[in-house]
Amino acid sequence: MATVEHSLSTLAGLTPQQIRHCIRHGQWRRPTAGLAPGYTQANLAIVPRALAYDFLLFCQRNPQPCPVLEVLDAGDPEPREFAPGADIRTDIPRYRVYRQGRLADEVDDITAYWRGDLVSFLLGCSFTFEHPLLEAGIGIRHIELGVNVPMFITNRPCRSAGVFQGPMVVSMRPIPHAQVIRAVQITSRFPAVHGAPVHVGDPAAIGIHDVQQPDFGDAVPIAAGEVPVFWACGVTPQAVVMHVKPDLAITHAPGYMFITDRRDSTLAML
Amino acid sequence: MATVEHSLSTLAGLTPQQIRHCIRHGQWRRPTAGLAPGYTQANLAIVPRALAYDFLLFCQRNPQPCPVLEVLDAGDPEPREFAPGADIRTDIPRYRVYRQGRLADEVDDITAYWRGDLVSFLLGCSFTFEHPLLEAGIGIRHIELGVNVPMFITNRPCRSAGVFQGPMVVSMRPIPHAQVIRAVQITSRFPAVHGAPVHVGDPAAIGIHDVQQPDFGDAVPIAAGEVPVFWACGVTPQAVVMHVKPDLAITHAPGYMFITDRRDSTLAML
Repeated sequence: MATVEHSLSTLAGLTPQQIRHCIRHGQWRRPTAGLAPGYTQANLAIVPRALAYDFLLFCQRNPQPCPVLEVLDAGDPEPREFAPGADIRTDIPRYRVYRQGRLADEVDDITAYWRGDLVSFLLGCSFTFEHPLLEAGIGIRHIELGVNVPMFITNRPCRSAGVFQGPMVVSMRPIPHAQVIRAVQITSRFPAVHGAPVHVGDPAAIGIHDVQQPDFGDAVPIAAGEVPVFWACGVTPQAVVMHVKPDLAITHAPGYMFITDRRDSTLAML
Repeated sequence: MATVEHSLSTLAGLTPQQIRHCIRHGQWRRPTAGLAPGYTQANLAIVPRALAYDFLLFCQRNPQPCPVLEVLDAGDPEPREFAPGADIRTDIPRYRVYRQGRLADEVDDITAYWRGDLVSFLLGCSFTFEHPLLEAGIGIRHIELGVNVPMFITNRPCRSAGVFQGPMVVSMRPIPHAQVIRAVQITSRFPAVHGAPVHVGDPAAIGIHDVQQPDFGDAVPIAAGEVPVFWACGVTPQAVVMHVKPDLAITHAPGYMFITDRRDSTLAML
């Protein structure tokens, strides 16, 4: 039986469980932005158990770039806290498989790669705080332009943990002067998804020499009267994992996130 | 040269570094309550590296009873983040040494027990939020009476992680009706030190049958017009560690905490 791909309008109004069912059965193979609005989407990083302690410790020491939502037991594909019944091996529309830190495959199902020693980390994603920013009338430039958020490697070292070390990677959003304080307040309420900005203003102060030349993602214009505001970015943990060249590591493909059953609002502080 | 024990008044006004120096040199062997006001005091739990991943994962899954402030590298006695230059083996006035989960020794220096595979966890302590409660005019009964806070084993299971499992232990403070909401608000700002209460009111709802018979600590009276308010308690992680009977585990002695260089206010959200 041929699988039929759904359109975004077909998926509108479906629950996270229903959308994951569509993804699992090959009926949605595109990015997840806009799906299940109000529900938390998560980054995925899978490493062998031998690296899991150092990685969890790295996340504990660097909670802004690496906010841990859930760590699955070794070999367990079910996110029992954030999505009971889901299968982390099939419920994301696109995965990246790395061998010795190099991209080896891009697939929509990692069952063939699964091993009993693999530990899956679900990490918070800035999608969660962009929604309340938009609701507060604060525009998100890369959403307006339909491009990827610009990301930069900073001169700020993360705190190292075992084999893991590296600089913090940040994302940048231009914010009008008059809305910067509100943007700090709103995102401060979401420490589980990167939280408050790590820097406001002069890019050079954190080692960014040309804010129009991002290291990842797409450049976006900064208008007169706007300030570049920088948040810690989930690319940070992926970069440090690849740096140590594990025999196997698996992540979601950028933009193709894991959709959880947890409402964004449950991640807000106060 | 004989060591001279200092009095509380002698230590008043000293910095955390100076107080740790006194402790290290045997000049203070009493509980740490009241020392270095405004600076965060921490619980200590030391386990062998073989158990450290499961323990860190247990803390990640149960952040209210087990709020991790810092995890030291295996074999490293220096809390580089919360107290650079300190030595976790000598800077607490009293330690408890456990063999196979049973108390084997109580000492003021654990250097003789130190091993290269020991991992030290500093966990948040409710001392940090009791200070802002007092500043808000909310009395703390066990402080008023000069006794230990009453603690209870609840019927709420923690989320298990590897070998670690067990019920949540809570501490109880009676709060006047009119101040309960403010107490929730204030402690919610301190997720790094147990945060908001886990329960307000009827003890039976969380499996406590007699609130005048605590499992640990001392009973305190609840006056008419007061509500028992329950916070997750740092005894929880100690209890789950002892339950698995590690060959060696070391903790601070109750009330004899590690004094960090970090201001309580830096742990507050917003």
